[in-house]
Amino acid sequence: MNIENLLSDRIKSTPPSFVRGILKAASDPSVISFAGGLPNPISFPQEEMLESMERIVKTYGSTVFQYSITAGLPELRQYIADRYNKKFGLNLGVDNIIITTGSQQALDLIAQVLLNKDDGVIVEKPTYLAAIQAFSLTQPTFYTVELTEEGLNLEQLEEALQHHPKFIYTIPNFQNPTGLTYSVENRKQVCEIMKKYDTILVEDDPYGELRFDDQQFPYIGMGKLPGSIVLGSFSKTVTPGMRIGFIISENTELLRYISTAKEAVDLHTNIFSQYLIWDYLTHNDFDAHIAKIKKLYKAQAQAMVEAMKKYFPDTVKYTIPEGGMFLWVTLPEGISAMSLFPKALEKHIAFVPGDPFFIDAKDSNTMRLNYTNADPETIEDGIRRLGELLKNM
Amino acid sequence: MNIENLLSDRIKSTPPSFVRGILKAASDPSVISFAGGLPNPISFPQEEMLESMERIVKTYGSTVFQYSITAGLPELRQYIADRYNKKFGLNLGVDNIIITTGSQQALDLIAQVLLNKDDGVIVEKPTYLAAIQAFSLTQPTFYTVELTEEGLNLEQLEEALQHHPKFIYTIPNFQNPTGLTYSVENRKQVCEIMKKYDTILVEDDPYGELRFDDQQFPYIGMGKLPGSIVLGSFSKTVTPGMRIGFIISENTELLRYISTAKEAVDLHTNIFSQYLIWDYLTHNDFDAHIAKIKKLYKAQAQAMVEAMKKYFPDTVKYTIPEGGMFLWVTLPEGISAMSLFPKALEKHIAFVPGDPFFIDAKDSNTMRLNYTNADPETIEDGIRRLGELLKNM
Repeated sequence: MNIENLLSDRIKSTPPSFVRGILKAASDPSVISFAGGLPNPISFPQEEMLESMERIVKTYGSTVFQYSITAGLPELRQYIADRYNKKFGLNLGVDNIIITTGSQQALDLIAQVLLNKDDGVIVEKPTYLAAIQAFSLTQPTFYTVELTEEGLNLEQLEEALQHHPKFIYTIPNFQNPTGLTYSVENRKQVCEIMKKYDTILVEDDPYGELRFDDQQFPYIGMGKLPGSIVLGSFSKTVTPGMRIGFIISENTELLRYISTAKEAVDLHTNIFSQYLIWDYLTHNDFDAHIAKIKKLYKAQAQAMVEAMKKYFPDTVKYTIPEGGMFLWVTLPEGISAMSLFPKALEKHIAFVPGDPFFIDAKDSNTMRLNYTNADPETIEDGIRRLGELLKNM
Repeated sequence: MNIENLLSDRIKSTPPSFVRGILKAASDPSVISFAGGLPNPISFPQEEMLESMERIVKTYGSTVFQYSITAGLPELRQYIADRYNKKFGLNLGVDNIIITTGSQQALDLIAQVLLNKDDGVIVEKPTYLAAIQAFSLTQPTFYTVELTEEGLNLEQLEEALQHHPKFIYTIPNFQNPTGLTYSVENRKQVCEIMKKYDTILVEDDPYGELRFDDQQFPYIGMGKLPGSIVLGSFSKTVTPGMRIGFIISENTELLRYISTAKEAVDLHTNIFSQYLIWDYLTHNDFDAHIAKIKKLYKAQAQAMVEAMKKYFPDTVKYTIPEGGMFLWVTLPEGISAMSLFPKALEKHIAFVPGDPFFIDAKDSNTMRLNYTNADPETIEDGIRRLGELLKNM
C-alpha cells in the first residue's frame, strides 16, 4: 500500500512544524533553549490548581467528568466576557464566547469556516508559524503585509485587501515572532481601512495580559468592526497544558458556524479543565498572579537585551519587547540564521531561525529568541555564547 | 457585512448535530432521555481520579501543566500498546499510538489527511452521525454499505470499493446507532475483500471493552491489513469529560501525517488529563472497573429489552445488543420517527430519530435508544410511555 497515493492535497501542503521538530533537540538539559515558546514553569500556580481540583470534584461531582456542550462552560465564558467588558469597555455576554482546545484550535476553526481552496488570507510578514500551518490545511492563497515598528504597513494592507481576502490574521500585542506592538495610531488607521472591506479581522492576543508597563492598548476591531474576532488563551497566564483558549466575537452568526465546526472536530473542550480554570480564576487574585509573571518576564527580557548589547556585534539588530515572550534578531544581510542553527546547537544553544515565520523565505537573516523559560543568568550565558558565534562569522 | 458570503463551502455542507441540538431539550430533568450517548455518571471513578490528580501534581510537578509533544504522553501510549498487544496478540509500540482530543478528533484528522473534495469514503448504513459531520468538513462523496445482523453486506462492499474510496469507516462492535456486532466470519470476509484494494480500513471501537459476555472478537484489519487503523477512547471506560481518545496503526508513515495534522489543529491534547488517565490506569484495577460498568449496562440493556417486549406493539422491531450503549428500533413502514419525536417530547421522552444516521434519509422509520444513562425503573417507565404513544399511532 502506497500511502503517498492516498494523501489529501491539503496535508501534502502542510509542513510539519520546524519549532516542534527542534523542541526535541532543545529538550536536552545541557542546551540553553531560546527556541520554544514555553511559559516559565515557576509561574504555574500548582498549589492553587490542586485546591481547585479538590473543590470542583467535591462541589460539582460527576458533572466535571461528563460530556458537555460545544461552546464551553457558561460560567467560564461569562467570566471572560466580564473581564473583557471591564478592561475594554465592551458589552459582551456568554453568547459572544466559544471555548477552544487551546488558541491553536481557534486558528483551525476560523480557517475551516471561512476558507475555500485558493481563497485569500492576509498575514503579517513575518507571522506565527503555527498559524501558517493551521491555515495551510485549507490551501488558501497567502497575502503578506510587512510589520514595521508602528504596526502594519498600511499601503501594503490596502493593496492586499484588493484581492478580497476572507480574513486578515494579526497579532497586535508583542507579536510572535517579532515581539513588536502596533501603536495606538496604527490600530486606528488599520480599523479605518478595514471598515471599507468585507474582510474579517482576527486579532490573536495570547500575550496581551503580559505588558510590562501599565498601559492599556485598545483592540483594533472589537466594538468597531462587525466582522471582528479576538482570540485569547489561559496558556500564558495560568497553564498551557490544560489547552484552554477562547474566541470572542460580537458577531454571533459567525460564532454559530464556528461552533458547528468545533462540534465536528472535537465535540467540546475538556470540561474538567474548563471548571478548573474557572474555579482558579474566581478563587484567587488573578491580577496579582499576572503581575508576578510580568515582573518575572520583564527581568528576563531586560537580561536578554542587556546581554545582547554586551555580547552581540553592532551589526546585529534586535527588537525591544514591551511585553510577551519573544524578541526578533536581524543579522547582517547575507547571513542565514538557518545555517547558523546547527553551529549554535553544537555550542548547546537553540533558537528558531526566521524562515518558518515567512510564507516563502529561504535563508532569512532573522531569528526568534524566547526569554521566558530561562533565568537571567542562563540568558546571559546563552547570549554570550551566541554572540561569540556571531563574531566568528 | 454579510457572513453568508464569507463562508467556506465545507461549512455550508456540514450540518449542526441533531443530537447535540436535542440534548438541550433532553436535559430538562423531567424528561426521560434515551437520546444522548452519555455514560452513566455512577460509573465515573471520582475518588480514584482525585487521588491520581494529587499524585501526579506531587510527582511530576510543572510537567503536567506545561506544553507537551503532539503524539501524546509516551507512558500512556505504551500502556495502550501493551493492553492491545496482550488482548489481541499484536506487536505495537509507542510509535503506533497517537493520543487524540477525544475519538471525535481522530475522525477529523483521518478525513483531513486522506480526503480531497469529492474523494470517496465508505460508511455503514446507518452510521455514527458525528462521523458524517466530521467527514463532511472535507466534502467527500459518501458510499454506503448496509448493515445486517452479520455485519457488512459483502456485495455492497465490493461494489462500493470499485469507486476507489480512500477509506472505509466501520464500527464493528455494538455499532452506533444500531447496536449490531459484526460476526467473526463477517470480519474475516471483510478482511479478505479489503486485501484486494488500496483502501484504508478504519475500525472505530469506543465500546469494544463493554461486551456483556466474556467473548473476545478479533479486529478486522489490525495485524492483517497494511492500511489498518483502530480508534479507541477512555470516554466510555473512565470518563468522557477528559477528552482522551487514541489512534492505533501499524502504519507509522500514515501516523506521521496524522501527527502533522494534529499539530496544525491543536498542537497536542491536554497533558494533565493524559497523565491523569495514565496514573489512574496504572494505580487501579482497570479490568475490575470495566467489569462493574459492564454489569451495570447489561442490567440496563436487559431492562430496556424486557420493557419493549412488554409495552411495544408486535409490529415494532429492535436489535438485542451484546454490549455498548445503544439499541435500534424499527417502526412499521411509513411511520416517521422524526414526526414521533415532538409527540414523545410532550410525554417527556427523548430519543434520536434515525434520519441523522443516514447520509440522505428523510422520515426514516427508525430510532436510536440509549440505555446507559438511566436506571432500570426509569427505563421501564420511559419505554412504557413510548409504547403507549406507538400503540396510539
